[in-house]
Amino acid sequence: MPEDDPYYVKGPLPETPEPPTTPEPWGETRVVGKPIPRIDAYERVSGSAIFPFDTMLPDLLHAAVLHCPHAHAMVKKVDVSAAEKMPGVHAVVTGSTPGFDLPWIPWYSDSTEPLGKLLDPHCRHEGEEVAAVAAETPYQAWDAVRAIKVEYEVLPYVATEEDALKPDAPALHGALKGNRVGDPAVYQRGDVAKGFAEADVVLEQTYRTACEIHTPMETHGATAKWDGNRLTLWESTQGVYSVQSTVAQTLKLPLSHVRVIGHYMGGGFGSKLGATKQTILAALLAKKTARPVKVFVTREEAFLSQGNRPPARMTLKGGVRKDGRLTALELKIVGISGAYPAGASGGIDFQVRDLYLCANVRTEATDVLINAGQARAFRAPGHPQGNWALEQMMDALAEKIGMDPVEFRLKNIPTVSQARDNQPYTSTGFKDCLIEGAKAFGWKEARTRARSTGPIRRGVGVAGGMWQGGSGGPPSTVIVKLFPDGSVNINMGASDIGCGTKTWMAMIVSEELGVPLERIEIEHADTGTTQFATPSGGSKTVPTEAPAGRAAALEVKRQLLELAAEQLKVGADELKVEDGAVVSTKDPAKKVEIARITALQRRGLLVGVGYRGPNPEGKAVNPFAAQFAEVEVNTRTGEVKILRFLAAQDSGRVMNRLTCENQVFGGVTMGIGLALTEERVLDRARTGKMVNANWHDYKIPTALDVPADKTVIAVDPHDTMCNTAGAKGLGEPATIPAASAVANAVYHAIGVRMTESPISPPAIVRALAEQAAKPGQQQRRRG
Amino acid sequence: MPEDDPYYVKGPLPETPEPPTTPEPWGETRVVGKPIPRIDAYERVSGSAIFPFDTMLPDLLHAAVLHCPHAHAMVKKVDVSAAEKMPGVHAVVTGSTPGFDLPWIPWYSDSTEPLGKLLDPHCRHEGEEVAAVAAETPYQAWDAVRAIKVEYEVLPYVATEEDALKPDAPALHGALKGNRVGDPAVYQRGDVAKGFAEADVVLEQTYRTACEIHTPMETHGATAKWDGNRLTLWESTQGVYSVQSTVAQTLKLPLSHVRVIGHYMGGGFGSKLGATKQTILAALLAKKTARPVKVFVTREEAFLSQGNRPPARMTLKGGVRKDGRLTALELKIVGISGAYPAGASGGIDFQVRDLYLCANVRTEATDVLINAGQARAFRAPGHPQGNWALEQMMDALAEKIGMDPVEFRLKNIPTVSQARDNQPYTSTGFKDCLIEGAKAFGWKEARTRARSTGPIRRGVGVAGGMWQGGSGGPPSTVIVKLFPDGSVNINMGASDIGCGTKTWMAMIVSEELGVPLERIEIEHADTGTTQFATPSGGSKTVPTEAPAGRAAALEVKRQLLELAAEQLKVGADELKVEDGAVVSTKDPAKKVEIARITALQRRGLLVGVGYRGPNPEGKAVNPFAAQFAEVEVNTRTGEVKILRFLAAQDSGRVMNRLTCENQVFGGVTMGIGLALTEERVLDRARTGKMVNANWHDYKIPTALDVPADKTVIAVDPHDTMCNTAGAKGLGEPATIPAASAVANAVYHAIGVRMTESPISPPAIVRALAEQAAKPGQQQRRRG
Repeated sequence: MPEDDPYYVKGPLPETPEPPTTPEPWGETRVVGKPIPRIDAYERVSGSAIFPFDTMLPDLLHAAVLHCPHAHAMVKKVDVSAAEKMPGVHAVVTGSTPGFDLPWIPWYSDSTEPLGKLLDPHCRHEGEEVAAVAAETPYQAWDAVRAIKVEYEVLPYVATEEDALKPDAPALHGALKGNRVGDPAVYQRGDVAKGFAEADVVLEQTYRTACEIHTPMETHGATAKWDGNRLTLWESTQGVYSVQSTVAQTLKLPLSHVRVIGHYMGGGFGSKLGATKQTILAALLAKKTARPVKVFVTREEAFLSQGNRPPARMTLKGGVRKDGRLTALELKIVGISGAYPAGASGGIDFQVRDLYLCANVRTEATDVLINAGQARAFRAPGHPQGNWALEQMMDALAEKIGMDPVEFRLKNIPTVSQARDNQPYTSTGFKDCLIEGAKAFGWKEARTRARSTGPIRRGVGVAGGMWQGGSGGPPSTVIVKLFPDGSVNINMGASDIGCGTKTWMAMIVSEELGVPLERIEIEHADTGTTQFATPSGGSKTVPTEAPAGRAAALEVKRQLLELAAEQLKVGADELKVEDGAVVSTKDPAKKVEIARITALQRRGLLVGVGYRGPNPEGKAVNPFAAQFAEVEVNTRTGEVKILRFLAAQDSGRVMNRLTCENQVFGGVTMGIGLALTEERVLDRARTGKMVNANWHDYKIPTALDVPADKTVIAVDPHDTMCNTAGAKGLGEPATIPAASAVANAVYHAIGVRMTESPISPPAIVRALAEQAAKPGQQQRRRG
Repeated sequence: MPEDDPYYVKGPLPETPEPPTTPEPWGETRVVGKPIPRIDAYERVSGSAIFPFDTMLPDLLHAAVLHCPHAHAMVKKVDVSAAEKMPGVHAVVTGSTPGFDLPWIPWYSDSTEPLGKLLDPHCRHEGEEVAAVAAETPYQAWDAVRAIKVEYEVLPYVATEEDALKPDAPALHGALKGNRVGDPAVYQRGDVAKGFAEADVVLEQTYRTACEIHTPMETHGATAKWDGNRLTLWESTQGVYSVQSTVAQTLKLPLSHVRVIGHYMGGGFGSKLGATKQTILAALLAKKTARPVKVFVTREEAFLSQGNRPPARMTLKGGVRKDGRLTALELKIVGISGAYPAGASGGIDFQVRDLYLCANVRTEATDVLINAGQARAFRAPGHPQGNWALEQMMDALAEKIGMDPVEFRLKNIPTVSQARDNQPYTSTGFKDCLIEGAKAFGWKEARTRARSTGPIRRGVGVAGGMWQGGSGGPPSTVIVKLFPDGSVNINMGASDIGCGTKTWMAMIVSEELGVPLERIEIEHADTGTTQFATPSGGSKTVPTEAPAGRAAALEVKRQLLELAAEQLKVGADELKVEDGAVVSTKDPAKKVEIARITALQRRGLLVGVGYRGPNPEGKAVNPFAAQFAEVEVNTRTGEVKILRFLAAQDSGRVMNRLTCENQVFGGVTMGIGLALTEERVLDRARTGKMVNANWHDYKIPTALDVPADKTVIAVDPHDTMCNTAGAKGLGEPATIPAASAVANAVYHAIGVRMTESPISPPAIVRALAEQAAKPGQQQRRRG
C-alpha cells in the first residue's frame, strides 16, 4: 500500500532530456567516482605543503596589527613615536585622523557608500584594526604594537538585536537610520492567512541560532611583495581572482599587475572569499618598507574580526492538514550583521520557500547592526539557521497530526522549484534521500524502539535540507597540457579549499586520457599563471570546474587521436586511449604508446582549452539531503552524545567516493557544532566584548565529539542534465540539516523542544527543570 | 649606368605571394616597430629582477664542485672523509669508481653511445667535474671541496688539432677511432675542378679563428628543490622545456614532474640551450639532503667547462672571372670540438654554399678532439668562422680583378637558395643591405679617401653575411588573457634571453588590442605554468613566437568585439579597439570602454590561444646583412681602433627599433671581440691548461672598445610571406659578418692580410715586419 508506506516505493524522477553540451555522459568509469586518496596527500601529511601562512621570502618582514580593545570607541589620538624606535621596526601605519598617515581607503560598502575605512578611527567592534607595524620578527612587531599609545573615547555599545533596536540605542553608523539595515525583505506567494485558515493544525514558534565563528585552522592573511608597480600576494583564500579584483580596485592598479597566489589554504568556509583588510595592509606595508611583508591574524583576531555565521532569531508559523499536506508557512527573521551590513538574514528563508510543497508562503527578513565583528558567508549562508527553524517545526507538526516525521516529509516533496517560477529540477533525489536513508538507518525500528526512562535517554531525529546553489555555471576555463612522454599538466584558476579539487580534476583527466594520476601535475589558483575561476564557494567548484576540465581533456584527446591515426594509418574515430597508449578498437595490433607518437614529439605539447558551457535553460539545479541522528541525552548533566549519524545526499555524480565522505562528515561535524557547542559569547552587561575568543572557550567539535558510526549514502541519479560532469554541489548541503537532525533527536529523547542553539548541557538541564515544573507535559511525547 | 654603378640602383625583389596564414600583414603600426624601452627595464636596472643566480629559498644549501686541475687525467681514488666532517657540510657526492657513490649517469652522447658520465673518473679536460659538496654557505662548500683528497693519474694531452691528429697522439675516447670524429662531411654541387679551370683568377688561403668563450654575465647553473617526487629547478637557461626534457630523461621522471623556471637570464649565446651537469648535480644534491640546493659555476669554471665557439682551420680556394662572376669555391674545414664530439665544423660552410651565386662548390669538414672543454652552440654556430674565410677571400678576389668589393659582391647575389634545391627566398634584402649600407656609410668616398702613410693608417672594409636559420616555425603556443578592466596577461613558454622578447610580445598584443604596455603583464619561461616553446636560440624567437602571440591577441580581439557588438547593438565587423575602448568605425558615438563591457565582467576573463602556423612551403627564409667598418691601425704598436661601424640588416619587419639596435650592436661587439681580442690560450707546451680563464686575461670588448659612431640600417621589406609577423631572425645575422668587416678594413689600412683571429697588436706588428722583409708587397695595395 504505497499510500501508507510511501517511502518504500521509489517515485518517478523528473524527465531527463538530452544533456545541453556535446560530450556523452560518462557510463562505466574507471577512475571517476572511485575512492582515491588526494594527490597532494603526501605534501599535506608530511608538512611539505607550503600554505600561504608558511610563505617565507628573503628579507621578509612580519606585521602585527593593533586592534581596538573596546566594543565601541573613537580613536582620539595615536602616538607611534616609541613604537617606531623599537628594534627591528621598519614601518608603523595608522589611519587618517590627526597623527594618522594612511590615505582614506574605504571598506565595508553598502550599495551606495563606504561605511568604514581601512584603519578607521571610529571602531565599531572589538578587534577593529587601528594601526599596523612591520618588523624583522613577529615578536618585534608585537612589542612595537604594545608600544603604540592610543587614546580612545569609549562609546556605548549594543551587543544584542533587542538592545540595538531600542529607540535610544547608540547608532553605529550616522549614514544609516538607526541600527536596522534598510527595510525588511519580503517574499510571498499565495495567501498565508487563507492557508492557515485551511489548516487543521497551526503552530508558531520562535527559534534562535547562536553566532558561529569560522575559525579555520589556517588564519586569514597574506604576504605581499612588490616588483616595481606590480604586486604579488600569497593569500590564504578561496578565490585568487576575487582577491585580485578587490586589491586592484582598492589600490588602483591594473588587474594584470596584481598577482594573487593561493596554492594551499587551511580552511575558509566562506570567510576567505575575498581580500581582507590584512591583504591591503600587507600591500601598503610592503610598499612603504620596500620589503615583502606578511600579515596574518592571530587566533583571537580571527575570532573577533574575520567573520561569522550571524546569529538569527526566527519566528515560524506553520499550518498543516491532518492528511499531512502543508497549507501555509510564515517566517519572520532578524539577522544580526555585526557592526557593518552583511546581509545577515539572507538565505535563511530558502528552506521555507522551496524545500516542501506549500502554496502559501510569506517571509520577512530584517538585518540589524550590533557592536561585533561583521558576518561573512559561512558554509551555506542562512541555510542551517532556516533549517533549524523549519525542520524542528516539521517535526512538531508531524507530532501534532500523529504522523511519522519521514512519512510527513515525503508527503510534501516538490519536483519543481516553487520559489523560481515552478522550474522543474534537473534531478531531485530528496525523496530517495529520505527513503534510502531511513532504510539504511533503520529509522522505523529506531524510532519505535523502547527507550530507557532512566537518566540516559535515547532518541532519533531526521531532517531534510536543500541548498539554494550548487548548480555551478560559467565562466570557467581549464587548460590541459599533454607532454610528449604522456604525462599531463592541468592549469586551472580554482582554489582547492580542502575538498580535493585538485584530486578530482586529475581524476577527470585520467578518466579521459588514460594517464595515471601520479603522472598528472596541477598548476592552480594563481592569477598570474592560471585561467579564470570564480571563488571556490557556494558548493559550485565541482559543477563549475569539472565540465571545463573534462572539455579540456577531451580536446587534448581529440588532437592526440588525430596524431596517432596518422601514424597508425587508421581513422581517428576507431581509436581509444588506454594505459598510456592509443589503440584501435577494431584491431588491437594497431597500437602506439603516447611517448612514441612522433608528431607529438615534434609538437612538444598538446594543449587543450576547455570552457564551462551554460546551464540548462528553464531548469533548477539543486542538491538535496536527508540526515538521521541517534543521540543519548544524560538528563542529569544535560550532556548529549551522538551515537550514530547517517547522511543521505543527492549531489548527482560522486567524483571521488573518499573525499565525498570526508566532505559530508566535515559538514555534519560543523552541524553538530552548531547544534551542541558553538556560540560567540558577548559580555552584554558590562563590556560588550567577546569572552570566548579562543579554542578553549569556544568549542568546535573534534574527532572525539562525532560518532564512530557514520554512514554516507550518495543517492546518485547520474543527473545527465545539470552539466557534462553530472555533478551538483556537495559541501554545503552536507551541513544544512545536520544540526536540525540532532535537535529533533534530542527532542525525541527528552520530549522537550530545544529551540535555541547551542543545545548546551546547562540549557538542557534548565529546560528539563522547566518541563518538570509544568504538569502534564510528559504526555506530549510519542512512544 | 647601372652596370657600372650597380649599388645605386635598387633591383627588383623576389615576387611576394599572399601570406600563408589568415591575418592581414600589418600596415601602418602604432606600437610595433617603434623604439620602446624594455617593459622590464625597471627591474633590470634597479636590481630587483631575480635572476636564477639570485634565487633564495628558505633552507637553501650552496654547492661547490671539485674540478679536475689537469688537462687529461684518471681519478684513481677520492677520499671525502675529511670533507664530510667539515662544518655546515650536508652532502658530498662523487662518481662511481671505488669510493664513488653516484649511479652511472651518462653524459656527452654521440649518436650511438654515451662517451662520458656525470662525474667521470676519466677527466678529459681541465675543469671536468669530479665531486660536489652541498653546505650551508658557499664558503663552507668551497672549504670542503678543498678538503677532498683526489689521487690522479696524469695522462698525456693534446691541445691542438695538429697534435691530436698525429699518429701517436693519446686517444681521448676508447670508443672512437683516434681523435677524428667520424668521416669528413662533404657537400658538393657542380664541379669545382671545371669551375677553377674557367676562372681568370684563383686564390687559395688558409684562415684560422681562435676559440671564443661565451662567458655570459650570469654564469651557468640551477637551484633545485624537491616536493615529494616532483622537482622544481630555477635555471639560467635559454629554454626551460629543453632543460625539462633532459632532466626528466636523466632522472627518469615524468615531464610533468619536472618544473623548470627561468624568468630572467643573464646571457647565454648558445651555451644555455639545455640542462648542464650542474642542473643534474643540483637535483641529486637536493634529493640527498632534502633541502633546496644551488649549483652555479664560478667564472673560471664557466671558461673551462661551459662551452665555446670552437677554433677552426679553414682552407678556402676561390675562382673568379674578370667580369666578377664566381666560378668555384672549395673549402676544407677542421673544427675542434674539445674533449667530446660537438659538431665543431658544422655551420662553417654555409656562407660558402649559399651567400653568393656560384655553380661549383665543394666543402669538406672534419671534427677533431683535443683535451679542452667541449664546444657548444655559440651565436650563429660556424657562421662567423666561415664568414671570416669567405669574406676575406671575396676581398682578395675583388682586389685581384680590380673591382670594388661592394660592386663585386653585388655581381653575385642569388635570389634562390642554391644549397636547398634553388628554393626562392621569401625575401632577400642582401642587395639592399649592400646598396643602402654603402650609401649611408659613404663607402665610395671612404674607400678612395687619401689615407695617411704615416704610422697611423686608416682603412674601410665591408662584409656580407647570411644566417642559415632565422625562419622560425611551429610549434609555439601563446595565450593572451584579457582582464575585465582591459589589462592583459600574456602566457608564453619562451625565455627572454636579453633580446627583449617580453617587450616585443607585449608590443604585439598592445598593437592588436590597444592596451597600453604598462597594463600588460607576462608570465613566461616556466614549464609548470606556461605554454610550450622551443629554446630561444637560432634567431628564431621573434619569427616563431610573434605569430603565435599575434594569433592569440587577435582571438581575444574577436571575442571582445563580439561581446561589445552585443552591447552596442552593431555588427562586430564594424568595430575596432582603440585606447582601451571598442568603437564603431561607422559611428564614433557607438563606443564602450573595455572596462564597461558587462558581458566581459561576467565572463571574468577572455582567453585567446594562438598557435604558430606552418612556414610557406618550398620557400627559403633567411636573414641577411652587410656591415661596414672604418678602422685606424697604429703600425708601431699594432693597435686597432674602430672608428665607426655600420650594420645594414635584412631581418624583415623590425619589432622594436630600440632593442633591434641593441641587439645589432651586441652582435657587432661580439664580432669585434672575435676579430681583435678573444682567444682561449692553452699552454700547449707544458700543461695543456688554459692560461687565461678570467676576464682580465681573456678580453671581451667593452663600451670603450666599440666606436661611438654606430649606425644600424634595417632594410625592412615587410616580408609578408615568411610568417604573419613579417619578421625574420636578427640576433645571429648581426654578428656573422662583423669580424670579417673589421679584418677587411685592417687589410685596407695596412695592406697585410690578417688571416688568423684575433688580430692582436703583436700579430700586426709581426705581420708588418714580415711584409717589410718582402720587397714589392706595397704594390698590392689599392689607392
